[in-house]
Amino acid sequence: MKLNRVLKVVPALSLLICNVAQANEGMWQPHQLEDISSKLKQAGLKLDPADMANLNQFPMNAIISLGGCTASFLSDQGLVVTNHHCAYGSIQYNSSEENNLIEKGFVAPQKDAELPAAPGSRVYVTESLTNVTDKITGSIDASVAGEAFYNKIENNQKKLVAECETSQDYRCEVYSYHGGAEYFLIKQLAIRDVRLVYAPSASIGKFGGDTDNWMWPRHTGDWAFYRAYVNKDGKPADYSKDNVPFEPDAFLKVNASGVAKDDYVMVLGYPGRTNRYRTALEVENQFTWVYPTAKQYREQYIDVIKQNAPAGSDARIKYESTLAGLANYAKNYGSMIQSYNQGDMLARKQNELEALQAWITSSDARKAKYGEALEDLNTLLEGGYEHQQRDLIMSYMARTNMMSVAKRLYRLAHEKAKPDAERKQGYQERDMNRFSQGMKRVNRRYDPTVDKAVLAHFIEHYTSFPDSQRNTTFDAFFGLDNGYDASAVKAQLDSMHSQTELDNEAVRLAWMDKPVEAFKASDDPYIQFAVSQYDYDKALEKQEDKLSGELLRARPAFMEAMIAFKRSKGEPVYADANGSLRITYGNVKGYSPQDGLEAKPFTTLEGMLAKYVEGDDEFDLPQKVRTAIANQQYGDYVNPQLGSVPVNYLSTVDITGGNSGSPTLNAKGEFVGLVFDTVYEAIIADWDYDPKVNRAIHTSVPFMLWTMKHIDGADNILDEMTIVEK
Amino acid sequence: MKLNRVLKVVPALSLLICNVAQANEGMWQPHQLEDISSKLKQAGLKLDPADMANLNQFPMNAIISLGGCTASFLSDQGLVVTNHHCAYGSIQYNSSEENNLIEKGFVAPQKDAELPAAPGSRVYVTESLTNVTDKITGSIDASVAGEAFYNKIENNQKKLVAECETSQDYRCEVYSYHGGAEYFLIKQLAIRDVRLVYAPSASIGKFGGDTDNWMWPRHTGDWAFYRAYVNKDGKPADYSKDNVPFEPDAFLKVNASGVAKDDYVMVLGYPGRTNRYRTALEVENQFTWVYPTAKQYREQYIDVIKQNAPAGSDARIKYESTLAGLANYAKNYGSMIQSYNQGDMLARKQNELEALQAWITSSDARKAKYGEALEDLNTLLEGGYEHQQRDLIMSYMARTNMMSVAKRLYRLAHEKAKPDAERKQGYQERDMNRFSQGMKRVNRRYDPTVDKAVLAHFIEHYTSFPDSQRNTTFDAFFGLDNGYDASAVKAQLDSMHSQTELDNEAVRLAWMDKPVEAFKASDDPYIQFAVSQYDYDKALEKQEDKLSGELLRARPAFMEAMIAFKRSKGEPVYADANGSLRITYGNVKGYSPQDGLEAKPFTTLEGMLAKYVEGDDEFDLPQKVRTAIANQQYGDYVNPQLGSVPVNYLSTVDITGGNSGSPTLNAKGEFVGLVFDTVYEAIIADWDYDPKVNRAIHTSVPFMLWTMKHIDGADNILDEMTIVEK
Repeated sequence: MKLNRVLKVVPALSLLICNVAQANEGMWQPHQLEDISSKLKQAGLKLDPADMANLNQFPMNAIISLGGCTASFLSDQGLVVTNHHCAYGSIQYNSSEENNLIEKGFVAPQKDAELPAAPGSRVYVTESLTNVTDKITGSIDASVAGEAFYNKIENNQKKLVAECETSQDYRCEVYSYHGGAEYFLIKQLAIRDVRLVYAPSASIGKFGGDTDNWMWPRHTGDWAFYRAYVNKDGKPADYSKDNVPFEPDAFLKVNASGVAKDDYVMVLGYPGRTNRYRTALEVENQFTWVYPTAKQYREQYIDVIKQNAPAGSDARIKYESTLAGLANYAKNYGSMIQSYNQGDMLARKQNELEALQAWITSSDARKAKYGEALEDLNTLLEGGYEHQQRDLIMSYMARTNMMSVAKRLYRLAHEKAKPDAERKQGYQERDMNRFSQGMKRVNRRYDPTVDKAVLAHFIEHYTSFPDSQRNTTFDAFFGLDNGYDASAVKAQLDSMHSQTELDNEAVRLAWMDKPVEAFKASDDPYIQFAVSQYDYDKALEKQEDKLSGELLRARPAFMEAMIAFKRSKGEPVYADANGSLRITYGNVKGYSPQDGLEAKPFTTLEGMLAKYVEGDDEFDLPQKVRTAIANQQYGDYVNPQLGSVPVNYLSTVDITGGNSGSPTLNAKGEFVGLVFDTVYEAIIADWDYDPKVNRAIHTSVPFMLWTMKHIDGADNILDEMTIVEK
Repeated sequence: MKLNRVLKVVPALSLLICNVAQANEGMWQPHQLEDISSKLKQAGLKLDPADMANLNQFPMNAIISLGGCTASFLSDQGLVVTNHHCAYGSIQYNSSEENNLIEKGFVAPQKDAELPAAPGSRVYVTESLTNVTDKITGSIDASVAGEAFYNKIENNQKKLVAECETSQDYRCEVYSYHGGAEYFLIKQLAIRDVRLVYAPSASIGKFGGDTDNWMWPRHTGDWAFYRAYVNKDGKPADYSKDNVPFEPDAFLKVNASGVAKDDYVMVLGYPGRTNRYRTALEVENQFTWVYPTAKQYREQYIDVIKQNAPAGSDARIKYESTLAGLANYAKNYGSMIQSYNQGDMLARKQNELEALQAWITSSDARKAKYGEALEDLNTLLEGGYEHQQRDLIMSYMARTNMMSVAKRLYRLAHEKAKPDAERKQGYQERDMNRFSQGMKRVNRRYDPTVDKAVLAHFIEHYTSFPDSQRNTTFDAFFGLDNGYDASAVKAQLDSMHSQTELDNEAVRLAWMDKPVEAFKASDDPYIQFAVSQYDYDKALEKQEDKLSGELLRARPAFMEAMIAFKRSKGEPVYADANGSLRITYGNVKGYSPQDGLEAKPFTTLEGMLAKYVEGDDEFDLPQKVRTAIANQQYGDYVNPQLGSVPVNYLSTVDITGGNSGSPTLNAKGEFVGLVFDTVYEAIIADWDYDPKVNRAIHTSVPFMLWTMKHIDGADNILDEMTIVEK
C-alpha cells in the first residue's frame, strides 16, 4: 500500500487505559506506555517505557512527521529517513527528461549537493502533547447542541491553535480522541528547509509497482533520505545556503544485523485513521454500500481516464498519479469487501454491541447513564446516510480539476471577508501557503478532455438517481431537470472547458485575492458554476455541521459506555488512530494468507531477481543489481540463516495509512527497518484487527545498507550514521 | 489443470534404461521398474518392483484407461474410480434442466439404478505390451526415405493392429518411443458397457472452477465412479440389462487414513505427451513463437465467442465447453511462457547439446555414428517451420464446426474408395464408431453466428500474412487474392452458413456413405469448400508425410546419441510420455512457489469453507457441506495432525495430461487418492522438470470417504470397497 495518510484528519479523545488483551493490537499514545509497561517488557522491550513517554528525549524525539508520512532522524546532523514513496514528490520535483532522478536515483556526495525538497515540504518535530479536553468542551453548557455545539468546539480549537502558533516556526493542531471524548493540543516545530539527500532508483524504491502494492511476497527498497536545515540560531527558516543542519535531541542508531524471526519490534509514527469502535450500523453501511459503490466509481473513473488519455500520451502522463491513487484504493476497498464477505465481522460487532447493551441494562446506574447511547448514535448516523448516494457521487465529481478549483476559490473569497479567527479551517491565513501550492499544482494533473469525460460519465450516472438523491441547483445548472440529454451536457462541458481561464495558473492565483462581487460579475463559466452552487452547498454544510455537532455529543457518550464496558472485562482501550503520535509493538512473524499457504517472514535478494522482467516498468532491475545478486556479492550484509540478504520482512505491529516511513525499532530502540505496507489480508484491519493475518511489511536494514554500499555508492551517508551490530 | 490427454498421440521408442538421477523425475515403463528397483525401495516402496511389471496382476491389472483419462478398479465388481472431470461428459449426458445431475450429483443406490455413460465411453484394460520395433522398422531397407519410409511404417503399424484386433472387444495400437527408436504394440480389452455409479455435486467435484484450475491451494473433490459391465461370458458387449459387472484380476484397496507428509506415493496411468528431449531449436521456436501466438489466438477466439454469444444465451451454453478448453490451455501456455522467460531452460538446453556434441566429437567412432545427428534433425525441423504461420492459423480456423465437418466427410469419401487396410488411420472401419459419434455431437456445440464470427476474425488476421504464408486455394475460395474485403467475406460466410445442410445430424450421417462424385456434384457451399481445398490439403499432407518420414529417421539417430551420452554419465533415460502406461513415484511434499511463500502439502475443509462465495458458480457450496464443516462433523476422517479432514495434497510425482483420474498408491499399493492437476509453476514440466517446484495435486481419500459418508450418503459404495486403515 501507500501508507501515507489519505483521509483528512478531522480535529477531535484519549481516556486512561487499562491493559492489553489482544496480542499486539493497539496504537498507543506515549502517555499510555507506562500503563502497558509489563506487556511491553514481556514482549521483549529492553528500554524503560516511562522514558519512551518523554517527547524530548530518545527515542521519541527522533520520530518526526512529514505531514501524511512519518520519518525519523538517523544522525545528529538532521539526517532523515522515510519511505521512497513519501519522498516521491521531491524526487519528481528535481527530475527532468534529461536528468530523471526517479529512474536513476540520487546520492548527494556532500551536503552542498543536496537538492531542495518539493515546495511545501516540512519536517514536523512534536514538542508537546497537552490534554485540552477541558478547554474545548469543559466550558460549553450542556444545553448547547447541534450546529452551535459544533461551532463552539471549532472556535475553541481555533483559539488554542492561534495561541500556540506563535510564529510560522510552529504548527499546532487539536486532535480529538474517541470521537470527541478527549482532545489534545499538539505543538510541532515546523522545519521548512528540507533537502533531498539520497533516493535509490525507482526500480529498487518502487520495485513491484502497483502489482505488488499491498501484497506479500514483497521486494521493495522503499527508503529515501532528507536532511532538515535551520538557520544559524537553530530556528526554522526558509531555504538559505547559510542554513545549517538541524541538530535533534535524539537520533536512532542503525542495527546492521536487522532482525530475526520472533524478534521484538516496535513502530513509532503518525497513523492516520482507524475505525475499530464503529457501530454495527456503520460497519454494514460502509461494507455493503459505501466501499462497493466507491470501488465501482474508482474503476469507472480509471476506465474513463484510460479511454480519453491513451497510454503514452501527454494527457496520460498528467493523470498517472491520479490513476495510481484511484487504483490504490480500489484495490484496498476490494480487499476489505472480500475480507468482510468471507468473515464474520458484522456478526461479531453485533454480538459485542448486544453484550454491551446487556451489561448496561443489568445496572440501573449504567442504564441511566448509557441506556440510550447506542440508539441515539445510530439514529443520528441513519439521518446522515439519507443523501449518501448524492453525496458520494458529488464527491467523485468534485475530484475533477476545474470544478474543485472554482469552488475552492469562491469559498476563499467568502471566508476572506471575515476576520481570520472566524474563517473556516483550511481558509485561514495559516493555510494560505498550502492553498496556493495546491493552485500551482493543478496544471500538472489536468487535461480538459479527461476532465470533461469524467464529468460527463458521472453526470449521466447521477441522472439515474431518484429525486431524493438529486441536487436541485446542480440539476438546474446542467439542465437535468427534465431528463438527461447527453449531447447537450457534452456541449455545455465543451463550452465551459474551452472558455474557462481557470486552467491558467496566474489566473487562479489572481482569483485568490478577489472579492465575492468579482466572482458574481465574472463570465468565466466555471466561476459562474461555483457561484450558482454556493448557497446550496452552504446549506448542506450547515446541515452537516449540525449533524457533526450532534455526533460530537453522541459518540463520546457511546464511547464512554464502550470503554467502561471493556474496562469491566479487563480489555484494552486505545483510541482509534487520528494522525497523532502512536507506538505499536509486535514480533517478526509469518502468517497463513490462506489454507495451504504459509507466508514466510523474510524475502531475499534471490526472490527479487526472480521477479525481474526486462523492460517492465514494475519489475525491471538495473544490470548492476542483477549482477551483484547473481554473483552473491553480499559483503557484510548476508544473513547466515537465510543464506542471502533479507529484503523485506513481516511483523505483527498494528499500523495504518500515515505510518508510511515510520522507523521500526528493536528492543533496544535501534533502527531495524522502515514500515511501508500491510499485507492484502490485513487491509480490513482499519476496522477489524485479526491477529492471525495482521502483518505489516518492513524493508530491512541489511537490504538498505547493502544497496547503499554495493549499488548506490552512498558511503558518505553510511559514514554519517551510527551503525551497530547485534 | 485438466489432465486429460489433449494432444493426439502420434504412433512412434523405449530403450533399455540405466538408472535414476533426478529425484522423482521420470515416467517409467512397467518393464523398467526392475532397473530402478533400488531407487524405488530407497524411496519407500514395499511392493516387489518385479511384480509390478506384470500387467495381469495387482497392482497393474487394476489400472485402466478411459481414452484420454486414467482410472482404476476399486472392487471385484468392476467399480471404477476416475476424476469428476473425466466423467463429466457422462454426468452431463444424463442431466436435463429438470434433473440436473451436474448440480445435484448422483448416487445409484443399487446397481440397477446406474446410468449409461456418454455414448462411446470405454474402459480399456491393457493386456499386453510387446516390443515390435523389428516388425515396424527392422525390415525396411536403409535406402527407403521420406514419404515412402513414413508409409512403410504406417502400413506396418496398420498390419500389426489389424492382426491384433481380432474383434471389437480389443483395441490395439502401436506406440512409438523416443521419436521412433522403439515401437510397442499395446493390446487392450475394450469394455463398452460403462455406467455411471456416483458423482458428487459440481460444487464439490468442480469446486474452484477455472479460477483454481492449475492452482494451489486447491480444494476440489475431483472424483466420480463408473462400473464396467460385460456379458455373461465375461466378454465386452453392448449395453444390455443382462450384462454383469466385469471382474478384474485385481483391484485396489482403499486406505482410509490417506497419506502423511513425506510419505512414499506413486501414480500409475497413461500420461499423454512430454517434450523433455527436444532440441534447443524446438524449444526456442515453441516458447518464443508457437505458445505466444497460440495463446493470442485462443484469447481472440474466446473474445469472439463471448461477443457473439452473450452470457446466458443458448449459444453461450453450446460454447461453454469450447470456451473452457480454449481458456484452459491459454492459461497453460501463459504459465509456460512466464516460466520460460523467468528461467534459463534454453541456456541449459544449449549447454546440454553442446556437451553432447563435445562428447560425440571426442571419439572417432561416435563421430562417425552420431556426428551429424543433431544438425540433420535441426535442418529438418527448420524446414517444417517454414509455413508455420499459415499452418497455425489454419489449425485454429479448422476448429470451427462446418469447416471441419465438411473436410472430414469429404476425406472419408476418398478413403472409403480404398481397401480398408490402405486407408489413412482415423478413417478405417475400426474408426467409424468414433467418427459417427463425432458427427452426432456437432449440434451440441455449434451456433452459426459464432462459427461465422470466428472465421471472419481469423480470415481478417490471416490476410495480413505475407504471400509465403498464404494458402492459394483458400485465398481463391474466399476471394482474398486481391486484398481483403471484409463485407464480401462476411456476405460469403452468411450465405454459406444459411445454405449449408451440414448443420443437420441426419444429413451429416448420410454424407458418411456417399461417394466422391456426390460431393463434387453437391451445391452445399461447405461441401463445395471441402472439394475446392482437397487437392491443396492433400499436397500439403504429402509434404508433411515426407517430413515425418525423414524425422522418423533423424530423431531416433539423435535420441540414440543422447541416450548413449546420458548413459555414459550414469543419467536416467525414460521415454517421453506417449499415452502408454507409465509409473511415476515420489513423496508427499510442499514447495516454495516463490521467495517468501511456502505451499503446505495439505489443504483442509476449513480452507474450502473459507473460499465459499454464495451464488458464485465456482465457489458455491451446498448448505449441508457448509454446516458439516462449520460443526466439524468429521467422524472418522479427521487427521489428528491437521485437526481437520485433508482435502487435497501435493506430491513430487512426475505427471502430465492423460494422468487425470490416475490412482495414487502408497508404498503397499493401497489407493490413497486421485491425481488431477499440477501446480501453476510446474506446467512447464512437460518440457523441463524442476524438482523444486514440480508438484502434482491429489484429492485425498479421507475427503472422498467423508463426502460419501457425511454428504452424499453413498454408503453402498463405501460398503463395496475394501477399506483399510494405516
